[in-house]
Amino acid sequence: MGVAQADVVARATWSALVEPGDAVAGVLVDLLGAGPALGWVRSAVRDGPDLEQVERLHGPLVDADRRRLGRSVERWAARLPDCDPGRDLERLDRIGGTLLVPGDQRWPTALDDLGAEAPFCLWVRGAADLGAALERSAAVVGSRAATSYGERVAFDLADGLSSAGVRVVSGGAYGIDAAAHRGAVARDGRTVVVLAGGVDRAYPAGNARLLEAVVGAGGALVSEVPTGSLPTKSRFLQRNRLIAAAGRATVVVEAAWRSGAMSTAHHAARLLRPVGAVPGPVTSMASAGCHRLLREGVAVCVTDAAEVRELAGLIGVELTAGVDADRSADLRSARPQDGLDPVVRRVLDALPRRVPAALDRVASMAGVSVTEARGALGLLELDGWAEQRGAGWVGARIGTS
Amino acid sequence: MGVAQADVVARATWSALVEPGDAVAGVLVDLLGAGPALGWVRSAVRDGPDLEQVERLHGPLVDADRRRLGRSVERWAARLPDCDPGRDLERLDRIGGTLLVPGDQRWPTALDDLGAEAPFCLWVRGAADLGAALERSAAVVGSRAATSYGERVAFDLADGLSSAGVRVVSGGAYGIDAAAHRGAVARDGRTVVVLAGGVDRAYPAGNARLLEAVVGAGGALVSEVPTGSLPTKSRFLQRNRLIAAAGRATVVVEAAWRSGAMSTAHHAARLLRPVGAVPGPVTSMASAGCHRLLREGVAVCVTDAAEVRELAGLIGVELTAGVDADRSADLRSARPQDGLDPVVRRVLDALPRRVPAALDRVASMAGVSVTEARGALGLLELDGWAEQRGAGWVGARIGTS
Repeated sequence: MGVAQADVVARATWSALVEPGDAVAGVLVDLLGAGPALGWVRSAVRDGPDLEQVERLHGPLVDADRRRLGRSVERWAARLPDCDPGRDLERLDRIGGTLLVPGDQRWPTALDDLGAEAPFCLWVRGAADLGAALERSAAVVGSRAATSYGERVAFDLADGLSSAGVRVVSGGAYGIDAAAHRGAVARDGRTVVVLAGGVDRAYPAGNARLLEAVVGAGGALVSEVPTGSLPTKSRFLQRNRLIAAAGRATVVVEAAWRSGAMSTAHHAARLLRPVGAVPGPVTSMASAGCHRLLREGVAVCVTDAAEVRELAGLIGVELTAGVDADRSADLRSARPQDGLDPVVRRVLDALPRRVPAALDRVASMAGVSVTEARGALGLLELDGWAEQRGAGWVGARIGTS
Repeated sequence: MGVAQADVVARATWSALVEPGDAVAGVLVDLLGAGPALGWVRSAVRDGPDLEQVERLHGPLVDADRRRLGRSVERWAARLPDCDPGRDLERLDRIGGTLLVPGDQRWPTALDDLGAEAPFCLWVRGAADLGAALERSAAVVGSRAATSYGERVAFDLADGLSSAGVRVVSGGAYGIDAAAHRGAVARDGRTVVVLAGGVDRAYPAGNARLLEAVVGAGGALVSEVPTGSLPTKSRFLQRNRLIAAAGRATVVVEAAWRSGAMSTAHHAARLLRPVGAVPGPVTSMASAGCHRLLREGVAVCVTDAAEVRELAGLIGVELTAGVDADRSADLRSARPQDGLDPVVRRVLDALPRRVPAALDRVASMAGVSVTEARGALGLLELDGWAEQRGAGWVGARIGTS
């Protein structure tokens, strides 16, 4: 694995010592390394924080940073006696789990985008090669209080993504999360469930059978907190940042005006991951958050698995054929020019069929600049959509049948 | 009225002589005036087109323009003998209608944005002051093949817009058009129906009673073709540009992937009018066009009448209170900061509640530049949302209750 066992244990300890997303701890571990940073904390608890050691690596600290570090040490000191990585790792062994740490080839480097808030390690039950799994992935998230419409869409999206080899990432909650995992399990089972508590705790209990099915079918349960940990409200919120970082894109299927899925979407946007939102009836409050994301420009409108793959940059030629055949009859009748750039399409639509139009006339009809029209006409001519006749342009025949 | 009767008759003749949206005729009328342009056509039919007269006003014509003008004259010559403005105006009188021409105080100047493709005149049945009516207006359009969801949304939007004093503009078709007019009629009746055929012809016949109700309740039926004219396919398409130009914004409630409502949306976009699309279930092909407009960035997501008014720039303080009270309970619980600029909101969301964060830290948490964060914090401080403490910033109390 190429990672020292001491580092593994130190990181397991950190994951028990601090709450997820603790950036002060993250900076300390980045500066000193996980093991030495733990040693620094132990000394700090005994003798007070050695700020000079930190400043040697970090540069001068402002007063606010010093105070923040001091308060953090106090907080950690309270929990240090309860940390028992041996016990936690033994629990993990008992369920056949794996502890992944950065440097392990199976570590999903996408999480490094979280910077100082990246997890120290991942407690994994099931298929442990998360690096490979998340290479082609999309987070599919949404409300617990989902409608049957939302659950159906989540199931279908996960089904479509799985059949295109895209791994689904979601939480373990009722509603959209569960529907997405069910859709993936129904197809090939390899889905990634990110839990807010320990991977040995099925939470919520009603999803226990689904979580077992995920593990049994080749998927993974993942958490940044040790085995035995309880899922708390703040851990749920921090868990959302992991889901956002793990997926190449995040899609919100249904979400109320304010909800956890909305926070996942904003985490993804902050990480510069593409965000998609599935529209729904405006009369459904379960879709109000999705519509809000669309209105505010945070999310792009997505309506099927192919559009999610496009969003995530995962349209691979080798995989598209089968999935695109699944699209509706209406889409199947789409003309070839539907894939064109909007400006080019507008120029194409503006082209007269018979009487040639001058360049500036085409531009004005299309509502584009003369320069844009010139470029678009060049492209259209190359593809046989436009034809120059005398001083003007006409649309070519092949587009009109 | 301040418009010479000769101009009225000439424009009535032009509206019968050429098909809607004939830009060659539009340029000729703009250059010579409606009456003289008609004289020019009569001479052209007898003696061939007097290109010199046109060039004196227009500047030199290129060969393509000369040929185009020649062909237009041929086309008009064929129809000239059948033009009988006296008969058409008498039919209009019989139904108590009004012919509006540019220069009339009641002329809706918004249509002038169509340039050479603006209508020569409007044949109106019902309330003739379209200029005043369209001052505060929104086009609500969509498919004939609407679902009950779409019809309900169109009805509710039109109801909400009407109660805020915003005039609804739509076609006279079954489905979304009819539902929108019904919603407006149910509220105050003053809605604008733009027809593709003559205003004395109820088309489709099944909407005859609705069209009568519109006129009876103070609304208007409008067409750019004379009384007695048949609605043809091309007139339906051209009618869409009138709807797009008449509304301050255009909202598509339901539309299939390709449909007339999509063309109206694109006309509106070309006229730089804001375009809205109402989302719906992704499983409904009747919403596929709306989702396409959202995906392609042509339209903004709108879910209720208040959002349509915002889109159209018609949020007037004096009128909002009553309508906003109609919004859902969920929206009523929205925090005051929901109206903030997205950058400012992100900075606000990133502000710590207790431990002050330095400017660059706030910027990084919010995912904005330091300059943006500085500006946003200034605004937030002014409004009492943010507070400077030492070298850092915290969120103020008033936003958290």
